[in-house]
Amino acid sequence: MKSDTNPTRRSFLRAGLAGGAAIAGGAGGAFAAGDPLITEIQDWNRYLGEGVDARPYGSPSQFEAHVVRKNVPWLTSDAVSSVNFTPLHELDGIVTPSGLCFERHHGGIAEIDPAQHRLMINGMVEKPLVFTMADLKRFPRENKLYFLECAANSGMEWRGAQLNGCQYTHGMIHCVMYTGVPLRTILEEAGVKPEGKWLLAEGADASAMTRSIPLEKAMEDCMVAFGMNGEALRPEQGYPIRLVVPGWEGNMWVKWLRRLEIGDEPWHQREETSKYTDLLPNGKARRFTYVMDVKSVITNPSPQAPITHGKGPLVISGLAWSGNGRINRVDVTTDGGRNWHTARIDGPALPKALHRFYYEFDWDGSELFLQSRAIDEDGFVQPTKDELRSVRGSNSIYHNNGIQTWYVNKDGGIENVEIS
Amino acid sequence: MKSDTNPTRRSFLRAGLAGGAAIAGGAGGAFAAGDPLITEIQDWNRYLGEGVDARPYGSPSQFEAHVVRKNVPWLTSDAVSSVNFTPLHELDGIVTPSGLCFERHHGGIAEIDPAQHRLMINGMVEKPLVFTMADLKRFPRENKLYFLECAANSGMEWRGAQLNGCQYTHGMIHCVMYTGVPLRTILEEAGVKPEGKWLLAEGADASAMTRSIPLEKAMEDCMVAFGMNGEALRPEQGYPIRLVVPGWEGNMWVKWLRRLEIGDEPWHQREETSKYTDLLPNGKARRFTYVMDVKSVITNPSPQAPITHGKGPLVISGLAWSGNGRINRVDVTTDGGRNWHTARIDGPALPKALHRFYYEFDWDGSELFLQSRAIDEDGFVQPTKDELRSVRGSNSIYHNNGIQTWYVNKDGGIENVEIS
Repeated sequence: MKSDTNPTRRSFLRAGLAGGAAIAGGAGGAFAAGDPLITEIQDWNRYLGEGVDARPYGSPSQFEAHVVRKNVPWLTSDAVSSVNFTPLHELDGIVTPSGLCFERHHGGIAEIDPAQHRLMINGMVEKPLVFTMADLKRFPRENKLYFLECAANSGMEWRGAQLNGCQYTHGMIHCVMYTGVPLRTILEEAGVKPEGKWLLAEGADASAMTRSIPLEKAMEDCMVAFGMNGEALRPEQGYPIRLVVPGWEGNMWVKWLRRLEIGDEPWHQREETSKYTDLLPNGKARRFTYVMDVKSVITNPSPQAPITHGKGPLVISGLAWSGNGRINRVDVTTDGGRNWHTARIDGPALPKALHRFYYEFDWDGSELFLQSRAIDEDGFVQPTKDELRSVRGSNSIYHNNGIQTWYVNKDGGIENVEIS
Repeated sequence: MKSDTNPTRRSFLRAGLAGGAAIAGGAGGAFAAGDPLITEIQDWNRYLGEGVDARPYGSPSQFEAHVVRKNVPWLTSDAVSSVNFTPLHELDGIVTPSGLCFERHHGGIAEIDPAQHRLMINGMVEKPLVFTMADLKRFPRENKLYFLECAANSGMEWRGAQLNGCQYTHGMIHCVMYTGVPLRTILEEAGVKPEGKWLLAEGADASAMTRSIPLEKAMEDCMVAFGMNGEALRPEQGYPIRLVVPGWEGNMWVKWLRRLEIGDEPWHQREETSKYTDLLPNGKARRFTYVMDVKSVITNPSPQAPITHGKGPLVISGLAWSGNGRINRVDVTTDGGRNWHTARIDGPALPKALHRFYYEFDWDGSELFLQSRAIDEDGFVQPTKDELRSVRGSNSIYHNNGIQTWYVNKDGGIENVEIS
C-alpha cells in the first residue's frame, strides 16, 4: 500500500477523523453490537422494493424533494414572463440535471409538436430552405458541453447584496451537453450571399423572441441543438430545437427556433435595445455586450447550505466559467481577500463550460468572509463589485461578474454581504 | 466566409440537399406565402404557455413519452429481481439521462432515508469506522464520467440473434458523471492492515448484494459516489451511495452501499460463484472476469429506429467503450465486413466512459449489413461473435462483446441478424 502524499489528505490526518465514529471492537465482519448507529436494521433491508416496471422514466428520491428550481414571485408581474433559478447549492460536478436547469421565458413554455415544427432559412441566401426535424438529423452532428448564463444573472447585486442564496444570486446558469448540427453547416447548405453579415434568430413561442447575431459568431461555434444531456431538449429549453451561442448571453440562445434570416446589419429588436443593454452613469447604454465575462461563485457553503457540522474539515466548493474559453485558475479566500489560496479544479476543463473547483479547508470555528476569484485562459481576472461599479455605475441589470462574498458566523450560518 | 474542406460536408453537396425544401422566392424575411410547410401559425405561437412556476422539477416533452426504459417480462419471473433497458436508439452524445439509465436489482429498489443511512468500514483495518452521509461529504471529492455495463449485456446473443433492438441487445449500459469520494481516501482513514488484500462491498437493499473486490482495484480508481449527473443518485442507482468500480462489471458497483469489509481473500458469495461466472464448453467456469472488454454498437439506424427518409445522406451513429481505458478507433462497415471505414469519434474521449461515433454515409437504397468494431488504447480489437464462441462456447450469459450486425432492407426496415 502506497503512502499518501496529498497535502489535502495530510490536513485531514492533522485534524483527526473527518467525523467517522470509531467502533469499539468492530473488527471481525459483523455489525458491532450496541452501536446505535449501525444495529438498526431498516425496512429497506427487510422488505422488497419497487420493481423495474415501476418507473419507465425515473425521478429523484422522495428525500430530495426540496431540490427544485425556484422562482421569486415579486421579481416579475407574471410567471409566463419570468425566471426560475437553478439550485446550485444542491448540485455538484459540471453537468446540470435537465430537470433543474433554470428557465427564462417571455411568453410561457411553447409545447411544440416536432412533426409540425419547421426551421426556415431566408434573407440573403442563395437558396432559401425549410427543414423538418427529420431533415436536420441527416446532417453531421456534434456534442458539446457549454454553460448558458442569463445576462441578468447576479443583476440584483448591482445595488448591493440582496437575495440570500447562490440559487438566487447566481442560479440563472446551467451547463449541459448539447447535441446538434453546427449552424455553419446549415447556413452553407443555404449559401450565404457575400453581403450577408448578420443573422436574425426567431423563436416559435408566443413572444416570438428575436435576436441579431454577427455572422462571424454564427459560423464559428454556434449550433442548432435538438438534444441536451443525451435526450431531446426539454420543453422549457426550446424543444424541439434551440440555438446554442457558446459563451454569449443566454437571451441570444433562441429557443423553439423557427427561423434564421441573413441580413447585412443588425435588426435592433426590442431584446437588444430596450433590454439586454447596460445603462451607464452618463446616460448612454452599452450596445451588444454579448460575451459573458469570467466569473465564479462558491456554492457550498452558502446561505442556503450553512455549515452544520462544526469545526474541522470543510469542503468549499464552487463553479467558475468564462465566455472566452477555459478557466485557468480559481483562487479562494476565507478572510475577505487578505489571503488567497489556489483552488483545485476538478474534472474535464472544457472551453465555455462550467468548471468545478474545490478548496478543502480546516475550519477553526471563527467568522469567515468567503470569496472566489476566477482567471480565464485569456488572462481576464474576475473583478470586485466595486471595481465594476467604478466603471459602469449601478444602473445596470446585466453583466455583473463581480466577486461574491458570503459571511459565515461562528455557528456556521451564512449571509450574502458586501465588504470594501 | 471560409470555404468548407470537410470531406463529410462534400459528400452532402454531391448528394444534393439533405432534405430541406426550397422556397420559391423566399428571400426577404417574411414567410413565403403558399408553402404549406411554413404558412401555418401554430397554437404555440398564438397562446401563452406554462409559466416558470409550473414545473419545479422538469420532465420531458409529452411528444417524447415513448422514450422510456423497458423491461422484457418473460426474461425474469418477477420485476423486483429483474432489469429494464436504456433506450440507446433514442439517445445521443455520451451522457445518459438519469431517468433513462437501465436498472438491475435483486430485491427491488431500496428507498433509503439518507439521515438514517450509515457506511461501515470493518475487518482488517486499524480503526473500524461508521460514517454518516454528512461525514462522507467532508472528504475531498471528485467527479468522473464512467460507463456502467452489466456483465450480462448482450447475453442473449451467445445463442444467436435474438431480441430486435439495441435497447434490448445492448441497453444494460449507461454513462453518467459521478460525484463522490475516492474509495482510497476512506480506506486510508480506517487504515488497511498489511494482510488486507480484498474488499467486500455490501448493499443495504433486501438482497444485501455482496461482491469481493481486489484491494489493488479499490485503491486505484474506485469511488463511493453520492451524486450522478450533478444531482443526488437516483433511488434505483443506489441512493444515497453506491460503489463505482470503473471499467468492471456492473454487478460489482454495489448500490445502497452500507458496509466495506477488508479481508485477506475473496468471499465467494453467490454473485461471484453461481452467478457472474462464465461456463465454458469443458464444464469449467471462468472465475473473476471483472473487466468489461472493448465493445461497440450502432444505435442508429437500428431495428427500433429504421431509416424512414429513403436514399441519400444518412447519419450512422453508435457507442463504443472499453473497461481498459479509452477507445482509439471505431470502424464501421455497411457490407458485412468486406469494407471498413474509420468512424468519427465525437466529444471528449474519457477513459472508461462511453465514446460516441458517427459515420456519415450516402445510402443508395440497397440492402446493408451494418457493423461497428472498436479498438481500445491497449490495442484490444472487438471480436466477432463466432470468434468468441470458438474460445468460450455458447453456454455463457456474461461478457459477450461480439460485433453486432443489423440487416437493412431496401425499405429501410432493420433486423438483428448474424452473418458468417
